[in-house]
Amino acid sequence: MSTASPVRLGLIGSGWIGAFHAESIARRIPDTELVAVADPVPGAADRVAAPLGVARVYLDAADLLADPAVEGVIISSPAFTHADLVVAAAEAGKAVFVEKPMALTLEDADRAIAAASSAGVPLQVGFNRRFSADFAAAHRLVRAGRVGTPQLLRSLTRDPGLANPGGVKPWTIFLETLIHDFDTLNWLNADARPVEVVALADALVAPEHKAGGLLDTAVVTIRYDNGALAIAEANFSASYGYDIRGEVFGADGMVTAGDIHSTSARYFGAEGATAETTRLNIDLFRQAYTEELEAFAAAVRTGEVTGASGEDARAALALALASRASIERGAIVRLDDDGRVTS
Amino acid sequence: MSTASPVRLGLIGSGWIGAFHAESIARRIPDTELVAVADPVPGAADRVAAPLGVARVYLDAADLLADPAVEGVIISSPAFTHADLVVAAAEAGKAVFVEKPMALTLEDADRAIAAASSAGVPLQVGFNRRFSADFAAAHRLVRAGRVGTPQLLRSLTRDPGLANPGGVKPWTIFLETLIHDFDTLNWLNADARPVEVVALADALVAPEHKAGGLLDTAVVTIRYDNGALAIAEANFSASYGYDIRGEVFGADGMVTAGDIHSTSARYFGAEGATAETTRLNIDLFRQAYTEELEAFAAAVRTGEVTGASGEDARAALALALASRASIERGAIVRLDDDGRVTS
Amino acid sequence: MSTASPVRLGLIGSGWIGAFHAESIARRIPDTELVAVADPVPGAADRVAAPLGVARVYLDAADLLADPAVEGVIISSPAFTHADLVVAAAEAGKAVFVEKPMALTLEDADRAIAAASSAGVPLQVGFNRRFSADFAAAHRLVRAGRVGTPQLLRSLTRDPGLANPGGVKPWTIFLETLIHDFDTLNWLNADARPVEVVALADALVAPEHKAGGLLDTAVVTIRYDNGALAIAEANFSASYGYDIRGEVFGADGMVTAGDIHSTSARYFGAEGATAETTRLNIDLFRQAYTEELEAFAAAVRTGEVTGASGEDARAALALALASRASIERGAIVRLDDDGRVTS
Amino acid sequence: MSTASPVRLGLIGSGWIGAFHAESIARRIPDTELVAVADPVPGAADRVAAPLGVARVYLDAADLLADPAVEGVIISSPAFTHADLVVAAAEAGKAVFVEKPMALTLEDADRAIAAASSAGVPLQVGFNRRFSADFAAAHRLVRAGRVGTPQLLRSLTRDPGLANPGGVKPWTIFLETLIHDFDTLNWLNADARPVEVVALADALVAPEHKAGGLLDTAVVTIRYDNGALAIAEANFSASYGYDIRGEVFGADGMVTAGDIHSTSARYFGAEGATAETTRLNIDLFRQAYTEELEAFAAAVRTGEVTGASGEDARAALALALASRASIERGAIVRLDDDGRVTS
Repeated sequence: MSTASPVRLGLIGSGWIGAFHAESIARRIPDTELVAVADPVPGAADRVAAPLGVARVYLDAADLLADPAVEGVIISSPAFTHADLVVAAAEAGKAVFVEKPMALTLEDADRAIAAASSAGVPLQVGFNRRFSADFAAAHRLVRAGRVGTPQLLRSLTRDPGLANPGGVKPWTIFLETLIHDFDTLNWLNADARPVEVVALADALVAPEHKAGGLLDTAVVTIRYDNGALAIAEANFSASYGYDIRGEVFGADGMVTAGDIHSTSARYFGAEGATAETTRLNIDLFRQAYTEELEAFAAAVRTGEVTGASGEDARAALALALASRASIERGAIVRLDDDGRVTS
Repeated sequence: MSTASPVRLGLIGSGWIGAFHAESIARRIPDTELVAVADPVPGAADRVAAPLGVARVYLDAADLLADPAVEGVIISSPAFTHADLVVAAAEAGKAVFVEKPMALTLEDADRAIAAASSAGVPLQVGFNRRFSADFAAAHRLVRAGRVGTPQLLRSLTRDPGLANPGGVKPWTIFLETLIHDFDTLNWLNADARPVEVVALADALVAPEHKAGGLLDTAVVTIRYDNGALAIAEANFSASYGYDIRGEVFGADGMVTAGDIHSTSARYFGAEGATAETTRLNIDLFRQAYTEELEAFAAAVRTGEVTGASGEDARAALALALASRASIERGAIVRLDDDGRVTS
Repeated sequence: MSTASPVRLGLIGSGWIGAFHAESIARRIPDTELVAVADPVPGAADRVAAPLGVARVYLDAADLLADPAVEGVIISSPAFTHADLVVAAAEAGKAVFVEKPMALTLEDADRAIAAASSAGVPLQVGFNRRFSADFAAAHRLVRAGRVGTPQLLRSLTRDPGLANPGGVKPWTIFLETLIHDFDTLNWLNADARPVEVVALADALVAPEHKAGGLLDTAVVTIRYDNGALAIAEANFSASYGYDIRGEVFGADGMVTAGDIHSTSARYFGAEGATAETTRLNIDLFRQAYTEELEAFAAAVRTGEVTGASGEDARAALALALASRASIERGAIVRLDDDGRVTS
Repeated sequence: MSTASPVRLGLIGSGWIGAFHAESIARRIPDTELVAVADPVPGAADRVAAPLGVARVYLDAADLLADPAVEGVIISSPAFTHADLVVAAAEAGKAVFVEKPMALTLEDADRAIAAASSAGVPLQVGFNRRFSADFAAAHRLVRAGRVGTPQLLRSLTRDPGLANPGGVKPWTIFLETLIHDFDTLNWLNADARPVEVVALADALVAPEHKAGGLLDTAVVTIRYDNGALAIAEANFSASYGYDIRGEVFGADGMVTAGDIHSTSARYFGAEGATAETTRLNIDLFRQAYTEELEAFAAAVRTGEVTGASGEDARAALALALASRASIERGAIVRLDDDGRVTS
């Protein structure tokens, strides 16, 4: 409850993260209102909307985009729909928050950026780690010059599980998982430009699905134009929880971020010392997922994007595509000034 | 926004914690509504109410208690007013959340408990540490039997500052600060009964105010009827932040809780390793302050108090009064079954 | 092997710590030689001496003290023999290292100090924590003024086991265990003078032996003449290892020391995060036990005691005796300038 | 001092690590004796030998190898001399401890292994991390199956300084620094066979020496035949100390090792939380450097090598050479069954 007129948001795509965002808007973020939900699966939007008292429910995202009650949209539909929806939303004059990846090709990324720019609407991409208190503190230290020019960086994602390995699309580990790490590395490295990429990957968790294109374990090394060498790692079988860490090293120091202990409570017993760990990304990033939408709500009104921009999303995508090219060629690949793999 | 009809709460006392609670209700807790604020200082209630769009503002708490729009009240006025306000609120049929200490004498505590009981209203006391994720995890481990019967316990409060040492009332360190630690110890020790108390205290931070009754450093040792020995420590000059820790030790293990590092980010540089610390109790306990009110909002509807009860508050008060008696007598004091110091 | 003529040491008392010290001298400390071992139990000295190639073995400590090959002695016989042996060793002109407690009465402590002083021999007492790298680092920070004048201190000893509770002498917890903590507190508090002591204790680990005088759990609170309040805690049932920690708090900061994790290795698995702990004091204090004897060997030659002196041992003993008096009287006791409990 | 006849060792090469090893043998390790030192620089051997009372001093290592008093040798001369000296020592019937790298080519490595094998002498290589308590604990957990089959590994070396960047030979970062990490990865990965290597490197600390062949920052990614992907990182400008860490991740868990905090002491003050770090490898690895020589002394008598063998050294060298080939070719390189880069 507040005196300010709330920012009216619409949700496109009501999967788990969409549902969480819906709840954040309706219940955790002041001065915002969830006014509409769209999902092409019959009944899906209702399941999110009804408990939150949201009346406007659509099967077709286009209808939501045409709804004048909606000031801004949160796009959390499947990745392959993102770019078109960003363009459509921008053309409808809506502020846009889109989950990562914003697009699956650089062309689509460029279209999305151009559409938002032409329409003059803010475009924010869901790189939530930028809003994590841990990573934000690390970033402040780096930006304050405490490590000097970065020389070595690391970002990793270890996900607890792979419920349905047969359903994972080829290149998901780069386009949907490591894309977070690529954005984190770019951001921590002061937006330096990647010039070389080499990736190694395998299906170690579910080798029976490798033939179908599954890669569940990957290491990507990146050389940036400021000299820094960066490593991104991902894997889908973290038995101990949701493990996200980062590290920036330079001649003046090192910053680390990330901790999967769920609380400060520690137990010491006959077996030694033990502590509980965080199992779900929703628990690890509750604060970050909430704050990124608070930032978006502010952007709807001010026009100022403080989270990851369309350009940031394109830069992360360029690394995902370069990783794929490196795997396909079995080689180190070089990137041109535009982020494209040189032939 | 939600479909459920929100729990309508009134705030009595608009100091810093009252203002924070008001904001929690208005902006951080779903399904609640702040409908009224009372403060006898002209303009004070307005300063909290206006930015949150709360229309009902009272100088006299009695008027707020008479307001039928109010289902439950949060009492965050000065400590000496608490017991009478609890009684009045209960008699007005309102659910009651009262900041610690609930009362300053055992008689007043008994009156408050009796009033709530007669009126059949829930009575919750603001021992927020019970809602801290860190302390709650420690408590779960203790209750699960992981340490065995507690043999040694520790709870400490180190507050960063004493803005106006001349304005601190005598015995504040026991009645308003260590009362948190007393509740924590009782709670972690499975509500065992204290049988002996000895306190040592001094004015070390601001010795010039000792003559006026200031005690800013204290150590209290408690013997419980389950044999456990417990230590409560407090001090008002923590230069490094807001330091709240607990420890429970038994023959089967030890549990510790509390950490003042503000994030997981760590910096390593020429000077060694460094980390930022948490400076404000509002930052350290943001989650706990919010969850205790969520629990209260639930209690307003269910009648079930899940936080600290009036009886818990009386038990903590008994330890504060025993500490005072120990200081006054310069002796170990014994408590009877009713928590009173034996003559 | 070295060019310097080694410091020739004799060992009196061949229990576990004596045997460890013998091995340190023979194998871990350069420029020292273990030349003689005495133990009144037939065969006991041999069991230590033979594997180390030590030829001189005595039943009577007096014979070892009369041996001109011995420059300095390590007294690790039972506590009740310490003071007389220190006096005899000093009178024989030997440098003296004596395990804690140096004496069991202040009179005996004074006799021991006087004997060493008259003979002009160095007298060092086995307060090994002063040589622990962890505690030494904490002490340096305190002495460098980083915490300001101490206001609150804590030192604790949690021992993993009580093999034979029926064999523990009354007051052992104060005279043999907490005496370490008393020395640590005095040392960390810049040798301020204790003025008040209150102790609570019980037999919680082995209550069936309480009637025989066993106290296995104790909390002692001390007020010093610089205002600081200090807590010493001990217990004999640490299931998780050998737990020794210290803490010094003042208006300018806090220093903590002590960690029972046995290495930096950490394991994260389905059960959460785990780490191994240190089980034996010989493992926790291997470095400290070795360095205290290196310091003693140096003192034999230089005459300069860098570890705990006879006066330090007397000051720690005064706190143990005051704790006993507090328990016996059920009261806070005061100490005069000489460390004696006032009547 | 001991009854056993000491193991008589000779030192070849009296630089800083040679001098430290000499002191370990003479002063820190029981049952060993340093009987001879050889160094071609006039006076160098004397500077190490004299203070330790070692009489036999040689300019020519051949003379030391011909000395019947010597049972085993420690070779800590420059890397390019290692292989020939191992061969000569083995042919002289001496047990051999050689610092890393044992050789600079696979042919030389094979010669060294064959010579020791023919002579029937133990050959141990100075991969000290295997003896670090931290890494050994991690290794035990991995070998006990606690992480499952490794999927991701990491080992890093960050050295505090580059006193003379102009004097660093090309490829030093692979052949002398990362060779430690390569051995650690092989060892933690249960001696799986590397099949692919890709390295990125640069001169970021001292770019002015890049033209001379300096590489001071490197990231190497390795694919093993058990599927695991491993990362080795090195850099020569760690402002905060000597940073050596390792990590092994598999579907059943993760183990980490390495910590540069120099003690458990922690300071909390107005600037936040701080801790001291370890600055020198001699401090970080004092225990490991000592234990690897204790193991060697045992091997001299038993013939059983418990540290890294010649084959282990060859396997680590193969990774260093593959890294160099990867840099030279700007490509991912493949290794054959024999550890050679395929053309």
